[in-house]
Amino acid sequence: MLKMIDGGITAVPGIEAASCAAGIKYEGRTDMALVYSKAPCTAAGTFTSNVVKAAPVQWDRRIVAEDQPVHAVVVNTGIANAGTGAEGMRICEVTARAAAEELGISERSVLIGSTGVIGMQISEEKILAGVKLLAASKQHSKEAGTAASKAIMTTDTVNKEVAFTFTIPDASSDSGIVCTIGGMAKGSGMIHPNMCTMLSYIATDVSIQKDLLQKMLSEIVKDTFNMISVDGDTSTNDTLIVMANGLAGNEEIAEEGFAYDAVKEALQAVCLDLCRRMAADGEGATRLIECRVEEADTKENARILAKSVICSNLTKAAVFGKDANWGRILCALGYSGVSFDPEKVDLYLGSILLYTNGAGTGFSEEEATKILSEDEVILRAVMHQGTEEATAWGCDLTYDYVSINADYRS
Amino acid sequence: MLKMIDGGITAVPGIEAASCAAGIKYEGRTDMALVYSKAPCTAAGTFTSNVVKAAPVQWDRRIVAEDQPVHAVVVNTGIANAGTGAEGMRICEVTARAAAEELGISERSVLIGSTGVIGMQISEEKILAGVKLLAASKQHSKEAGTAASKAIMTTDTVNKEVAFTFTIPDASSDSGIVCTIGGMAKGSGMIHPNMCTMLSYIATDVSIQKDLLQKMLSEIVKDTFNMISVDGDTSTNDTLIVMANGLAGNEEIAEEGFAYDAVKEALQAVCLDLCRRMAADGEGATRLIECRVEEADTKENARILAKSVICSNLTKAAVFGKDANWGRILCALGYSGVSFDPEKVDLYLGSILLYTNGAGTGFSEEEATKILSEDEVILRAVMHQGTEEATAWGCDLTYDYVSINADYRS
Repeated sequence: MLKMIDGGITAVPGIEAASCAAGIKYEGRTDMALVYSKAPCTAAGTFTSNVVKAAPVQWDRRIVAEDQPVHAVVVNTGIANAGTGAEGMRICEVTARAAAEELGISERSVLIGSTGVIGMQISEEKILAGVKLLAASKQHSKEAGTAASKAIMTTDTVNKEVAFTFTIPDASSDSGIVCTIGGMAKGSGMIHPNMCTMLSYIATDVSIQKDLLQKMLSEIVKDTFNMISVDGDTSTNDTLIVMANGLAGNEEIAEEGFAYDAVKEALQAVCLDLCRRMAADGEGATRLIECRVEEADTKENARILAKSVICSNLTKAAVFGKDANWGRILCALGYSGVSFDPEKVDLYLGSILLYTNGAGTGFSEEEATKILSEDEVILRAVMHQGTEEATAWGCDLTYDYVSINADYRS
Repeated sequence: MLKMIDGGITAVPGIEAASCAAGIKYEGRTDMALVYSKAPCTAAGTFTSNVVKAAPVQWDRRIVAEDQPVHAVVVNTGIANAGTGAEGMRICEVTARAAAEELGISERSVLIGSTGVIGMQISEEKILAGVKLLAASKQHSKEAGTAASKAIMTTDTVNKEVAFTFTIPDASSDSGIVCTIGGMAKGSGMIHPNMCTMLSYIATDVSIQKDLLQKMLSEIVKDTFNMISVDGDTSTNDTLIVMANGLAGNEEIAEEGFAYDAVKEALQAVCLDLCRRMAADGEGATRLIECRVEEADTKENARILAKSVICSNLTKAAVFGKDANWGRILCALGYSGVSFDPEKVDLYLGSILLYTNGAGTGFSEEEATKILSEDEVILRAVMHQGTEEATAWGCDLTYDYVSINADYRS
């Protein structure tokens, strides 16, 4: 049974975290974070599909593909280390080497994450000083986890972390073994994940084979991280990492079955929660938009339709203006590339039917505005084509989005 | 030889125009337009690829597919007549019937265009009164053409019209025959044509076979109307119509050759001009963004890359903020779906090289800001993959775009 608990990534046994102000780009705030597991971790990851991959993405992909344990993630914010050529890769190497020395682990067990402006180089001096501070101050405490989730923020307005306990069946115990999973993420801008989003790190104490962990993760991202969008721009740095350190003491999960399903359910819950938080805290956003597509002919089409709606600038601006302009929703479904009969679609805003039988319903605009004033706006499109469904998450398009991005570098 | 001349669609011999204030949705401004040719026209058209097609788009597609002459186009602004079911189709029929009676032509020779809010029904009474006014006031004058191009505006800030003369070889004359082509268009929001854009009407006095006119048009839209984007939203109403009334007196063009090429060059020039005006006058835009992709491996990839850049909200916001944030351009190329080596791309802003050999060049920010302050900003990506190139046009993302679309209906 899945139970939400307090805290984030450090709610997981054996997971320590740290943060520090290294002055990478910002001054006067924390901008580096460490996640560390003394026990060796099985790791799985998904990364941006952008052809332009940041140096740390290239680094992490290689590490995750290797068949050796992972112990740590070192993250910096302010500079993305993308579009940085050979120097960018060198910075990853020196960072990993320094962390390995400080933590007494292998260089190939250190993952790296970066987020921020593309094209600037990171100062070696600053990052090495930061690594020293992180290694010296890491703690297995709720506070350390929260501080780390804050240190990875850029234009985010709130930190994003979540944790659950769940029980898996195990040969060693009739009542099963209680495991923990926790994670943190940053989002905000350049969010249109296509494998996963900006930066998200999840840890669990379950023991599971690497291939199964990766399989589970790859399936889950399709309905979680790949279903959110803030601005349609797929970042160069998207990284989602799951580390499993095995400290729960269960027999290693080596095949699909009840235990696998329980872990998958928990991982899905963590991903879903972080995604919703990321969409709701999109740059400049005042509210979360959730679009549910129901009764589609295929799962993939349901996903495409839902994503098309939450990506539509016009729909996003209409939600900001509290305008129940269902024509824009219908329009966005229409240009998604999925074939359907517009006369057979029903569109809902919350519980209000806006459009059916090819025309508007003459709903109460007042009621609609009330629903559009809430923090979470639910749009539903019932396609009447089949039984598949999908949900996507986005946010409204506001003056602040423009403001944030018109002078991001300055 | 192509020569730009004064005026727009009524610069073409035999083309009359009219406009009137019918109170369709707006009050106190003209909101209906008529384009009329006494001489029967060969017509070609391209229409939105949106699955949700407005009633007038459905109407026009049927008429253009038929093998009979076209005489008139009746356009209304304010209400898109999309998402309007059977009633929407009925309004098209009664509009065409009324125009046919007033003008003494066949109902099946009347094309219809609508633009505005999706989902509202058009008042039959108002549209019929409008048709009467239009028929009674049509004129073959520059003023009438300009007034019509103003009557089809919605959130456009300037009307868009252009005309050229050109010469085609003809058996009847050693020096060839001088022909005219002119057009008008409206753009502004929900502009991401995928067949062609919102509403654009072009007339010429050349005599040409229908199939050849359609072939020419379909080729041209790929590099003109399909290469502009204001907001990534493909409208339900996109319509581009070319009417050729044959009054130039040339022998009907019945095969490809010099005459066909001359007409194609002129039609391309009109389309290109209208497209650039549409992109520059995108909702809330302060400047035109032109993205040229050079040395791509295939034409199609060049188009995809160029369009990905001008559609990127982050790039658009950076141009608004006069920020030479080339990382966003590189990022947008990267997620376009086209495969390339980021280390081999060169990025230019005007004449300034921003990025080469996988890293930024340390260009002068001051120089860059100067270029970004101009009305037209040219971004160039040299891919070093082949010899193909493409250009796309868009505009910056501004506070005004959000403002316009947050309360469009109210």
